[in-house]
Amino acid sequence: MAVLNDLIIDDVTVITMDAERRTMRSATIVVESGAIVYVGPASEVLQAWAGELPAGLAERLERMPRLQGRGRIAIPGLVNAHTHAAMALFRGYADDLMLQEWLTTKIFPIEAKLTPDDVYWGTSLACAEMIKSGTTAFADMYFFMDEAAQAVEKSGIRASLSVGMGSLAQVADGVDGGSGGFGAVLARGTALCEKWHGAAGGRITTMLGPHAPYTCSVPFLSAVGERARQLGVGVHTHVSETFREVDEIRSAHGMSPVGYVESSGLFDAPTLAAHCVAVSDEDISILAQHGVRVAHNPGSNMKLASGVAPVEKMLAAGITVGLGTDGAASNNNLDMIEEMRLAGLLHKTARRDPTAVPAHVCLEMATRGGAACLGLAGSIGSIEVGKRADIVLLDFGAPHLAPVGIADPVSHLVYAASGADVSAVIVDGCVLMDDRKLTTLDEHEIMAEVERRAARLVRAVNAK
Amino acid sequence: MAVLNDLIIDDVTVITMDAERRTMRSATIVVESGAIVYVGPASEVLQAWAGELPAGLAERLERMPRLQGRGRIAIPGLVNAHTHAAMALFRGYADDLMLQEWLTTKIFPIEAKLTPDDVYWGTSLACAEMIKSGTTAFADMYFFMDEAAQAVEKSGIRASLSVGMGSLAQVADGVDGGSGGFGAVLARGTALCEKWHGAAGGRITTMLGPHAPYTCSVPFLSAVGERARQLGVGVHTHVSETFREVDEIRSAHGMSPVGYVESSGLFDAPTLAAHCVAVSDEDISILAQHGVRVAHNPGSNMKLASGVAPVEKMLAAGITVGLGTDGAASNNNLDMIEEMRLAGLLHKTARRDPTAVPAHVCLEMATRGGAACLGLAGSIGSIEVGKRADIVLLDFGAPHLAPVGIADPVSHLVYAASGADVSAVIVDGCVLMDDRKLTTLDEHEIMAEVERRAARLVRAVNAK
Repeated sequence: MAVLNDLIIDDVTVITMDAERRTMRSATIVVESGAIVYVGPASEVLQAWAGELPAGLAERLERMPRLQGRGRIAIPGLVNAHTHAAMALFRGYADDLMLQEWLTTKIFPIEAKLTPDDVYWGTSLACAEMIKSGTTAFADMYFFMDEAAQAVEKSGIRASLSVGMGSLAQVADGVDGGSGGFGAVLARGTALCEKWHGAAGGRITTMLGPHAPYTCSVPFLSAVGERARQLGVGVHTHVSETFREVDEIRSAHGMSPVGYVESSGLFDAPTLAAHCVAVSDEDISILAQHGVRVAHNPGSNMKLASGVAPVEKMLAAGITVGLGTDGAASNNNLDMIEEMRLAGLLHKTARRDPTAVPAHVCLEMATRGGAACLGLAGSIGSIEVGKRADIVLLDFGAPHLAPVGIADPVSHLVYAASGADVSAVIVDGCVLMDDRKLTTLDEHEIMAEVERRAARLVRAVNAK
Repeated sequence: MAVLNDLIIDDVTVITMDAERRTMRSATIVVESGAIVYVGPASEVLQAWAGELPAGLAERLERMPRLQGRGRIAIPGLVNAHTHAAMALFRGYADDLMLQEWLTTKIFPIEAKLTPDDVYWGTSLACAEMIKSGTTAFADMYFFMDEAAQAVEKSGIRASLSVGMGSLAQVADGVDGGSGGFGAVLARGTALCEKWHGAAGGRITTMLGPHAPYTCSVPFLSAVGERARQLGVGVHTHVSETFREVDEIRSAHGMSPVGYVESSGLFDAPTLAAHCVAVSDEDISILAQHGVRVAHNPGSNMKLASGVAPVEKMLAAGITVGLGTDGAASNNNLDMIEEMRLAGLLHKTARRDPTAVPAHVCLEMATRGGAACLGLAGSIGSIEVGKRADIVLLDFGAPHLAPVGIADPVSHLVYAASGADVSAVIVDGCVLMDDRKLTTLDEHEIMAEVERRAARLVRAVNAK
C-alpha cells in the first residue's frame, strides 16, 4: 500500500486555485505530513523555509518519494458536493422514466432490500470510481452510514457523511424515517456524528441530513438545527429539486420550500442545500442571507428533467455553489470532470449565452466551492501552502487533449478531458492512485461483490 | 501493423442494432474479407453456410485471428455525422466567447494561416482521437481536402469528405470561396469527388460541400445540386445553425434558410444538413419531404449556445437524424459516446421530460442514423450479416460501469461510459486499435507535429 504523507511532485503545471488563481508551469510541490509546504519553482524550494531552516531539511527533502509531474497537470482534488454513494449499486437499473415512476416502481423497492453490507460495498465502489476520476472529497447522504464510514476510512478518500433523516411517515424511502418517531431518527443521525466526526485523522467529518422539505416537518427541522449547533456540525439537505416540490409545499404550507425550511430555523446552522433548481429571486435572497451553500447537480437535473438551477444568479448573490453528481442511479457516473463540463454546457444553453458559466467558473465550483460546501474551505479546495495535500494529477498526453501549448489548461480540463485522464490522486499526502492503479482498494474484489449483491437485490425485488 | 480482413470475435455481448435491435449475449462474430458473415451462438457458426458449405471452411475458421470478447460489449462503429476534423489543431485555443467574436477574432485569422500539411496533421490527430473513442466513420467538411483524404487513407478509418465551398465574397473563412468565381470553387469540390470517391477500397467516399445559406447564392446552390447529381454523390451543408442566421436570411430573401436552400433545388440531391437548430414546423416538413438527413450536434450547439434542435419533432416527421461532434474547436473533443449522452441530456432538459430521447434513440442516431447520413445505410450502422465489419469493442470491467448484470448495456454505454472505455476498433475487418494501441497511426508522432504546427500558427496570427 503505497500511502505516504511526505512527497514531492516535480516539474508539473499547477492550476493552483489559490487566492490569485495562478497557474504555474514547471513547478514543484512539497508535501510534509499530509500538508502542502511549498508550491513554486524548483530553484526556490529552500527559500520557503527562509530564516528558520530546520536541521536536516535538505536531507529530508532528498529522501522524499517523488512523483513525476512532467507532462501532467496538477489540480486541487475535485469535491463532489452531493451524492448518495451507495446508489452506485443501482447504476443502469432503471433509466429514461418519469421521476415518480422511477422512484416508486424501481428505486424505493430495491432500496427496501438493502443490507448494511450492501451499503459498505456500494460505497466502496463509489469511492473507487471517484478516486479513479479525480475526486478527493464528497458529501454523502444515505442510510447504514456506519458502514459507509468504514468504506471511506479504508479507501483513504475524504468525506462528509450524513444519515438521510425524515419525519413524515409517507416517505421511508432512501431516508431513515422508520420506526420510533423523530426522536429515534434524530438519534441515529446524531450517533453517526458522535462516532465519526473528525475520524480517520480528520478525513471523515459529518453533518446531520434532514432529507427534504417534503419529508421533514417544521418541528423536526427545528430540532435538527438545534442539534447541529449543539454538535458543532453542518446540515446537508435537499431543497427545491423540482417545480412539483414547490407546488406541493406551497399548496400545503403557503410557502416555498426555501421559505418552509427558513421558517424552521434550520438555516441558522451551516447548511448545504442540494439542487435549488426551482428557486425564486426571493428564495435566492433567503439563501444568501443565511449563508446557505448550494450543491448544483447538472447531470442529475438534466437526466431527470428537473429543470435548470439559476446558478449564475446564485453566484451573483454571493452564494457559495459547489458541484455534485447526485447518486449514480440518476447520472449515471460519478465523474466530476464530466459534471464540470455539463455545468458549462447546461447554462450556456439555458441562458443562450456562450459566455455563461465559463470553464474557470466550473472549476471554481468543483474545487473551492465544493470545499466550502463541506465546511472545509480552510483546509482543501486549492493547492497552496497550509492546505491539506489533496491533489490530482492529469496526463495531458493524449490525442483528445492535443495541442497543449496553445490551449488554456482549464479549457482542456473542463471541455475536453474525462475522468480517465486522471493519472494520480493524493489525499492528505497519501497516494491513493498512481498510474491508474488504486493503492487502498481492490477494485476487482469490489466489482465482484457489487455484481453479486446487485443481482441478489433485483431477485429479491422481483420475488416479492 | 495488425490489420486483418478476416477475424473472429468470441464470447461477446453484441448490441447488434439490426432490424429487430437484438442484443445477443456470448455471441460469436465472424468476419471474412472485411464483411460480417456470421453473428450468433458459437455452436451454430457452421450453420450460417448451411447447404453450401465451402471447401476448407472449418480449417479457414480455425486459422482466423481471434479477438477475445469476454467482458466486452460489441457495438456497430459510431458514425460522426458532422465534423471539421482538422480543426483539432485549434482545440482549446479560444473558448467561452460570443460566436461572432470567436469566429472573427480567433478562428478565421488562424485558419487563414493553415497550410495543406497542417490539415494533413490536424486530420490525422482527429482520426487518432476518433478511433480511440470508438468512431469508425465520419462526415468531414473543410479545405485542403486532398491532404485530409491522405490522412484518412493512412488511418484506416472510413470517411465521407467534402470541400467546404462558398460563393459569397464576404466569407472566405473556413470555406473555399476564394479566387476565380464560383466555377473555380465548384471545380475544386468536384476534383475531390473525382479523385477520391470510392478510394481506399471504398472506405473513402465524397460529397459536395456548399457551406451554408449565408455563404452560398441560390445560383451556386443550384449548380452544386446539378453537379452532385452528375457525379452521383451527396451534398453536405450547414442549415439553420442559429436564430441569427434565420433572421438574416429571412430579411434578405424573405425565406427561412431551409426555404432558401429548397428554392435552389439543392435538396433534389441526397443532402446531409448539419445543425437544423432553428427550424420551424414548416421547415421540418420541407426537410422530410426531400429526404434531407440531419446531423445533430448537441455538444457544439450547447457550447456555442446556438439553441436546441427539435430532434424529436424531426424524428417523428420521419427524418433521418445522425449525431456529430462538429469541430474540436467548439466541442472540444470528438467523443461520440459523450455526444450520445449530451443528446439524451439536452432534450430531456429542453422538453422537461425524462423520457425524451432515451438511450436507445441516442445509440440509433449514432449508428444507423449516422450511416444513413453518410449514404452508407446499406453497408454500415449495424452488426449483421452482409454489412462491412465496422465494429467497436468496449471493456465494461471498470468501477464506473459496475454493476453490469442488472443494467441495460445501452444505458451504460450512453449514460456512464466514455471514449476511454473503448478497447478495440475494427473497420472493414481491419483492427485499427487493440488494447487501446493504434495499429495504423503513430499517435506520439502526430501529437508532436500538431504541437509544433499549432504553436507556429498562433505565432503567425500574433505577428501580423
